[in-house]
Amino acid sequence: MAIAEDTPLGENEELRRALVAEKHAQAVRLLRDHELDCWLTFSREGSDPLLPYLVGREELVGTAALMLFADGPSVAIVADYDAGQVSGLFDEVHPYALDWREPLRTTLAARRPARIGVNVSEHDHGVDGLTHGLYLALTRALEPLDLIGAVTSAEAVASRVRTIKSLAEVERLRRACRITARIFDDLTAMLRPGLTEADVHGIIGERMATYEVGPAWEAETCPAVFSWATPGGHSAPGQAHIERGQSVRVDFGVVSEGYRSDLQRTWYLLGPGETAPPEAVVREFEAVRDGIALAAELLRPGVRGHEVDGPVRTLLQERGHTFTHALGHQIGRLVHDGGVVLGPDNARYGARAGGVVEAGMVFTLEPCVGRTSIEEDVLVTDDGCEFLVPPQRSPYLV
Amino acid sequence: MAIAEDTPLGENEELRRALVAEKHAQAVRLLRDHELDCWLTFSREGSDPLLPYLVGREELVGTAALMLFADGPSVAIVADYDAGQVSGLFDEVHPYALDWREPLRTTLAARRPARIGVNVSEHDHGVDGLTHGLYLALTRALEPLDLIGAVTSAEAVASRVRTIKSLAEVERLRRACRITARIFDDLTAMLRPGLTEADVHGIIGERMATYEVGPAWEAETCPAVFSWATPGGHSAPGQAHIERGQSVRVDFGVVSEGYRSDLQRTWYLLGPGETAPPEAVVREFEAVRDGIALAAELLRPGVRGHEVDGPVRTLLQERGHTFTHALGHQIGRLVHDGGVVLGPDNARYGARAGGVVEAGMVFTLEPCVGRTSIEEDVLVTDDGCEFLVPPQRSPYLV
Repeated sequence: MAIAEDTPLGENEELRRALVAEKHAQAVRLLRDHELDCWLTFSREGSDPLLPYLVGREELVGTAALMLFADGPSVAIVADYDAGQVSGLFDEVHPYALDWREPLRTTLAARRPARIGVNVSEHDHGVDGLTHGLYLALTRALEPLDLIGAVTSAEAVASRVRTIKSLAEVERLRRACRITARIFDDLTAMLRPGLTEADVHGIIGERMATYEVGPAWEAETCPAVFSWATPGGHSAPGQAHIERGQSVRVDFGVVSEGYRSDLQRTWYLLGPGETAPPEAVVREFEAVRDGIALAAELLRPGVRGHEVDGPVRTLLQERGHTFTHALGHQIGRLVHDGGVVLGPDNARYGARAGGVVEAGMVFTLEPCVGRTSIEEDVLVTDDGCEFLVPPQRSPYLV
Repeated sequence: MAIAEDTPLGENEELRRALVAEKHAQAVRLLRDHELDCWLTFSREGSDPLLPYLVGREELVGTAALMLFADGPSVAIVADYDAGQVSGLFDEVHPYALDWREPLRTTLAARRPARIGVNVSEHDHGVDGLTHGLYLALTRALEPLDLIGAVTSAEAVASRVRTIKSLAEVERLRRACRITARIFDDLTAMLRPGLTEADVHGIIGERMATYEVGPAWEAETCPAVFSWATPGGHSAPGQAHIERGQSVRVDFGVVSEGYRSDLQRTWYLLGPGETAPPEAVVREFEAVRDGIALAAELLRPGVRGHEVDGPVRTLLQERGHTFTHALGHQIGRLVHDGGVVLGPDNARYGARAGGVVEAGMVFTLEPCVGRTSIEEDVLVTDDGCEFLVPPQRSPYLV
């Protein structure tokens, strides 16, 4: 049971520590690049989604101030009962029995950082973990030091720590994708007419237990299962049946060692006398597949999100299809991860779709339309991108 | 697999909607009591821990503005793909395709609330879900309406929605406690000398799978298992062995239908020739047990947190024992829930230990010391309190 949860269990403790050390080193390089002196993550009760990068776990119980500096030793100020969780990960650990303010002030008074980045972002939820209540408490604590003016957003650093994956992180994502693809294969062998969407949800749930992984998002809609009767969207699998002569689609990902996949596949159940899906089903499938292929051609470092989304949207429109959602989002420890989105330059996505793609980011590509769902996960490389598992080339036939 | 996760799965959809309706009605009463005109929860990607009370699930993907009013219909402004999740739960649902600002401004311009409470608290993480980035985006959106001055903290309302449990919520907590107690009973039958802490962790993990519940906190330390060699605290079960002539302690809770238990129990493995634990073990156990009994006598509506903690701390000190943590915290959807803590009036706990206990709150009582761990979960009633499962009266003998 336990290892199916999104927790460090099942992770090798040494590997976990190595990954944290790697992300700390990356953050220090980024602090120098972006002229921040200190990255301060201020949290309590697991309130900040950056904690896994900083301490290798999702939660510290007490109020914690975790500081990486462009120059000089890193410092963790944590409640005494949390000290064991950070020891060895930071150069200095200052446990407090009663109050975090005193050690925080002492540290910052000695180091005097000119620019202190905190986890605030209007557009990227993955680096916006500082709550407004904690922001108020923090700035009041800094008042006597005359350091409030030094506080700024750490977004440039924090978003890259989230999104520019190390080799070890890519391996974890690849593993999550492989298990997901394996479960899709298992499902192909078990799909049959008469099953309900909820039955398929149950089959995949059992497969997750077998492979000792958890669902990448809320279990109720992970997997989402869409029979012909169900148009799509974020709805829970219901009692609609899978029938011959119809397609069925699954939107599904797993969390494995803290990292999440997000893939979609489309099956077609051949009707009596059919040896292939009807022409309309094939054409729609090929439109989505070709859109993904085009996206993969365009996706490379330096391109902006909407510069990938736009041509794919046009291609689909030329084939008679419209999708209103974004072409793709990033994945990582969160299933919707990272500020940069492959989306249109409009009021919903514009602030994120204008972001620049960098090597090491991992995106979904999902220009799904009608009764066709294909979603692939791709790693941006130095000169293009690479599929983490083989993409779907044609509807799986049952 | 799926039903072991902390999700609405396994919950009856009708019961879930009834619970949301109950909490909405409670919130409207509280808005009137506390002279707030509107409670505005503003979230994205599941960023706010109050979402389960408002929509019956932990996450809405898009940026969402959920508003309850002291007078007049409730309003949910959500991304179009989230609309299905809130329909029927709010009087008005306004899905947006591109931008939440327009429908939010239209709603607030029409209703003109004089006081708008948002989820901000310096001391209670359970009602501090508004991130600083979202706070900035929200206040900028309200600027043209001249409503920024109306924004205040919703803490008085939101904290009571979290902590003053309805009968349906108490039933869920009671069920979580019962399953936890059942697993403790199962463990009593399976404990034997030579097992490691990690073995006990594995046994309890398997029991959770059997009863289709998940761990109440991070699986790595839920259960926490303390052999004689391990002093306690928030550490993961290791390779230390359980031996005859020693006690072993377990700190453990489950999440069932979204609600979390948190209990601790102490076992003693009789040594060769022993028919009872040594006098010192018994005396220590009785000190903790008597401390819990005293706490249960003192706990009632109107008392402050430190007025319960203080006498128990004194009793334990008179018996020669000191504990530095709080006597108890609240439980609910979070395992550390609610602003009011039964703790000492010091810099760590003072702001929360000064809070007033109300009927409907559920507290842990855990004055654990030395090698004795007992933690009980109690519901505050109109004239006292009630144990959710029978308290431990003596060490379980193996």
